[in-house]
Amino acid sequence: MRALVYKGASASPVIALEERPQPTLQLPTDCIIKMHRTTICGTDLHILHGNVPTCPPGRVLGHEGIGYVEEAGEGVKRFKKGDKVLISCITSCATCIPCRKGMSSHCKTGGWTFGHTNDGTQAEYVRIPHADSSLHPAPKAPEGDRDGKGLVTLSDILPTGLECGVLNGKVQPGCTVAIVGAGPVGLAALMTAQLYSPRMIVMIDRDESRLEVAKKMGATHTVVAGGADVQKKAMALTDDGEGFDTVIEAVGYPATFELCQDLVAVGGTIANVGVHGSKVDLHLEKLWGHNITITTRLVDAAATPMLLKLYEAGKLQTSSLVTHDFAFGDMVKAYDVFGKAAEHGALKLNIEM
Amino acid sequence: MRALVYKGASASPVIALEERPQPTLQLPTDCIIKMHRTTICGTDLHILHGNVPTCPPGRVLGHEGIGYVEEAGEGVKRFKKGDKVLISCITSCATCIPCRKGMSSHCKTGGWTFGHTNDGTQAEYVRIPHADSSLHPAPKAPEGDRDGKGLVTLSDILPTGLECGVLNGKVQPGCTVAIVGAGPVGLAALMTAQLYSPRMIVMIDRDESRLEVAKKMGATHTVVAGGADVQKKAMALTDDGEGFDTVIEAVGYPATFELCQDLVAVGGTIANVGVHGSKVDLHLEKLWGHNITITTRLVDAAATPMLLKLYEAGKLQTSSLVTHDFAFGDMVKAYDVFGKAAEHGALKLNIEM
Repeated sequence: MRALVYKGASASPVIALEERPQPTLQLPTDCIIKMHRTTICGTDLHILHGNVPTCPPGRVLGHEGIGYVEEAGEGVKRFKKGDKVLISCITSCATCIPCRKGMSSHCKTGGWTFGHTNDGTQAEYVRIPHADSSLHPAPKAPEGDRDGKGLVTLSDILPTGLECGVLNGKVQPGCTVAIVGAGPVGLAALMTAQLYSPRMIVMIDRDESRLEVAKKMGATHTVVAGGADVQKKAMALTDDGEGFDTVIEAVGYPATFELCQDLVAVGGTIANVGVHGSKVDLHLEKLWGHNITITTRLVDAAATPMLLKLYEAGKLQTSSLVTHDFAFGDMVKAYDVFGKAAEHGALKLNIEM
Repeated sequence: MRALVYKGASASPVIALEERPQPTLQLPTDCIIKMHRTTICGTDLHILHGNVPTCPPGRVLGHEGIGYVEEAGEGVKRFKKGDKVLISCITSCATCIPCRKGMSSHCKTGGWTFGHTNDGTQAEYVRIPHADSSLHPAPKAPEGDRDGKGLVTLSDILPTGLECGVLNGKVQPGCTVAIVGAGPVGLAALMTAQLYSPRMIVMIDRDESRLEVAKKMGATHTVVAGGADVQKKAMALTDDGEGFDTVIEAVGYPATFELCQDLVAVGGTIANVGVHGSKVDLHLEKLWGHNITITTRLVDAAATPMLLKLYEAGKLQTSSLVTHDFAFGDMVKAYDVFGKAAEHGALKLNIEM
């Protein structure tokens, strides 16, 4: 089969489309999925840049996708050959202590393994461990997403935006929200924040075209980042300039995390979503007495079943997050476009087998 | 009247006992309190070291104490001349938006003002703004604290340990707790953590005599800080070395906050209690995916009425936190002893008028 392989951050080229043996069942609870659609995530770029040392060279990348069950192990109860499924970015045994605490991201034999510690979904076939608790039946495509391209956003970015951003950030009716970063995950946070009826959502990004998308997707205000007056402009939108109840960090750099600290109100929450490659400054000399909360989270995908119901009911306009189409054979080119996403106006890519 | 005055961090001496005019009612909601007992807080030392720039030279210090109502403004309903009262370190108007959110620490006309932005309780008399919502009737001293010396701990350190440490840290039955710093506030966190029945409380401090006190007060384990193996020793106490559900930072230095990051389990909480004078490193390159929570808080003293009931019922052994007695005339000497607390085996001082 063909698979997109990470060759190492210092290799040239860093990635290549290669022939690999088709995966086989290793445990009775595995499924083999024949991929239908996959996509690329900002986290894949972090791997390419050498920021994820736990991902070794030789790994098949990708942790998102939709496919059909090719083979189901004899211990698999919920899925059979031919079923159309959504692959969650998180595999969960559903029985270990972290899983039973609702923290599948830290499952003792799962978590974020695809395209990381196990081969991933940017391939013609992928092996899914713990299939019963890691796959979801693909729902019927709703009116607004007839070709079903928007479904792939439910593998990762929608539950990530919701769980790591909106829920950890305690977004609630009437509150004020600032989202730093209008990439796919920031926009997923914007989309899912609206499920909780905040009165204001301010999107902040360097890229004005992404801010235009954000406005169409429900941002009440946008602020162009990059200048010295970003904080001032954003704070001026809040009551008495006192800052935001919820600030969502959806970038992953020291400077953006610093901006979040400048934007959070007394009593507010900074929900970190970004994947960070280095330490950051935390200004406890100012914030020790500000009654704030800072959260981090690797998505647990506990909200995915609910999001699938919402998607099926036509309440999530996820197709607006999918901007480009590629054939799987053009995977390397797709990475090139995604790596220069702002230049290409790219959000999520629909990559079809 | 006599009052202990902060002369400025670069002045010599930094503090002095001086004659000052007795305070008078400024608003109908004020009370004037004739002080009976006061004490010194680590925060007062932070002021002396110049770490609290919002406290100007000339300020009468102190935010803790017990006294008698000398004069009550005509708008005061709950207190009258002669009533014995506990002074909360936080004054609250009870009507502004932060107060109505339960965040009295950020009251628009109150908060932490005593010995900070208003003259404080290390004086023979003190003016209490918003008296009805900032004073508490002093309860009857329980069997274990017949002379009532332990009551003064309810002005600040008990609610601080509980609210900023235990409640923010989500201590709950069966959990594991590490407390970094066995000073008065760390010990107050130790005492109030036990209200929630954790299965393990590990106290960490450089001072072995404070750790002995901690053991007597209910710590299940102690670890002497200072060496390179502190983290290793503390982690070895937890299941599979996976770290603590709750880590309470009760010191206020970059190094101690760093240790907290090394001790917190995946899914755990770091509750910052320490007053910090400088920024700290936050290791998001490790913690971004660890599903942790970090909280900061200036005590709101919302738990003080409950703590007073517990104290009166004899369920808080607060007198064990009071180690030394001073007459108010020896206030400068008391500061000297408190500033070298470890050397003197000092925790809280009972300073009587």
